[in-house]
Amino acid sequence: MKIVLSLSGGMDSGTMLGCYLAKGYEVWPVNFTYGSKHNDYERTCARQLCKHYGIDMFPSINLGFIGDMFSSDLLKSGGDIPEGHYEDKNMKSTVVPGRNLIFASILAGYAESINADAIALGVHAGDHEIYPDCRPEFITNLKRVINTSSDRKISVLAPFLDIDKAGILEIGYNLAEEFKVPYELTRTCYKDQEYSCGRCASCVERLGAFTNLGKVDPIKYSD
Amino acid sequence: MKIVLSLSGGMDSGTMLGCYLAKGYEVWPVNFTYGSKHNDYERTCARQLCKHYGIDMFPSINLGFIGDMFSSDLLKSGGDIPEGHYEDKNMKSTVVPGRNLIFASILAGYAESINADAIALGVHAGDHEIYPDCRPEFITNLKRVINTSSDRKISVLAPFLDIDKAGILEIGYNLAEEFKVPYELTRTCYKDQEYSCGRCASCVERLGAFTNLGKVDPIKYSD
Repeated sequence: MKIVLSLSGGMDSGTMLGCYLAKGYEVWPVNFTYGSKHNDYERTCARQLCKHYGIDMFPSINLGFIGDMFSSDLLKSGGDIPEGHYEDKNMKSTVVPGRNLIFASILAGYAESINADAIALGVHAGDHEIYPDCRPEFITNLKRVINTSSDRKISVLAPFLDIDKAGILEIGYNLAEEFKVPYELTRTCYKDQEYSCGRCASCVERLGAFTNLGKVDPIKYSD
Repeated sequence: MKIVLSLSGGMDSGTMLGCYLAKGYEVWPVNFTYGSKHNDYERTCARQLCKHYGIDMFPSINLGFIGDMFSSDLLKSGGDIPEGHYEDKNMKSTVVPGRNLIFASILAGYAESINADAIALGVHAGDHEIYPDCRPEFITNLKRVINTSSDRKISVLAPFLDIDKAGILEIGYNLAEEFKVPYELTRTCYKDQEYSCGRCASCVERLGAFTNLGKVDPIKYSD
C-alpha cells in the first residue's frame, strides 16, 4: 500500500504517520505552506518527524495565495488568534475556507501522478463542531468526488475521524517501540511564536488530551 | 449575484464570462498558472478578455507545484502533445490528475472569502469522454462536497455541461452586441508555441465548432 499523507507537523498527522509506517505502508508525506501564523513552526516539526522516521523526501507545497487572498484569523493576514476552548464560537474565525478540500484535492492528484493507492488525512472528532471540512459528511462526499474526478481510483483514509485527541495520543503511545510518536517534535499552537502559547483553543485541547491520559506534554510552553 | 469564474483564456471560459456579464452578474475571474505547455499564452488571452470587458482585477493563482510534481503530457514536464481527434485514446495522456477538483476547491474557498455566491466552471459536453473531471457525475459530487466543506453555501455553476463547442460558440455569437465574445482574443491550442497549431485535438475540436457554425475562426494558425 502506497499512500500520500498530509503532514502538518501536529500531533494528529504525526500519529497517523507513525501508525501507517508501523503497518508497513509506503508513506509519501506532503506538507502545505499556506500563510497560516504557525506555518513555519509546523513545517519545521513536519520535517523533523520525517527525519525521525528516516524519510528523506519532504515536499512542502506552496499555496501562498491562500495567505494573500483568503479570509481567516488563522492566517498571517487575519486578526488575532482567539483564546479559550475549542468549541467556542469565536474559534469559527480560524476556519480557512475550503482548506481541507484544497489540500485533499492536491493530495489526490499527486497520488494519481505517483501511482499511490490512497491519501490520508488527520481530521479527528474534536474538529467537527468548528470545522465543517473535518466532519463525517464532508469525508463521505470527499470520497465520492475524488472517485469521480479520475478514472484511476484513489481511496481516502481518515483513520481518526471518530477519535478525539486523547484517543489519538493513546494510539501513538501504544505503537511498537520503533514507531512510537516523538510528541516532543510536534506542534499544535495556532500562534505566530516559537514556543506554544498554552492558551489558544488548539493548545488547550492538546494539553487536555495529555492530562486525560495522565501524561506530561513534552513540548515547551511560553507560559 | 457575485460569482468567481475560472477563466483560462479559452473560448469556453471566455464565452461564460460574456454570458454572466450579460446577465448583470458581478464576475470575479480567476486564472491558474500550473505549468501547462500553453499556460503563458492562455494567461495572456485571459488578461486581454478581462481588459476587453473592462474588468481591472485579474488574479492568476500560482500552482507551480503541479508542473513540478504531477504527471501529464499537458505539462511542460510531460511528453509531446498528441495530435488527432479529441476522443482519441492517446488524448488521455493530457489529463492532469485532479485538475478541476483542485481549481474548483480553490475557487470555492476564495468565493467564501470574498462573500461570493457561486463559482463557475466552463466544462462542456465535448470533454466528457477523455476528462473524468468534466463529467456530469463529477459536477454532481463537486456540488455536494463544496456544500459540506463550509457552513456558508457556495453554488457551482457549469452552464455548458451538456453543450458542445459549436453550441457554446453559438451562444457567444448571439449575445447582445456589447457582450459578444471577442474570439480573436481566445486560445485553445495545447502546444507551447505562439500561434495555434491547428492539429492537436484541442485545435481540431475548436476548428470543427467554427466550421459547424459556418464561421471563420479569427485567430492565427501556424499551419
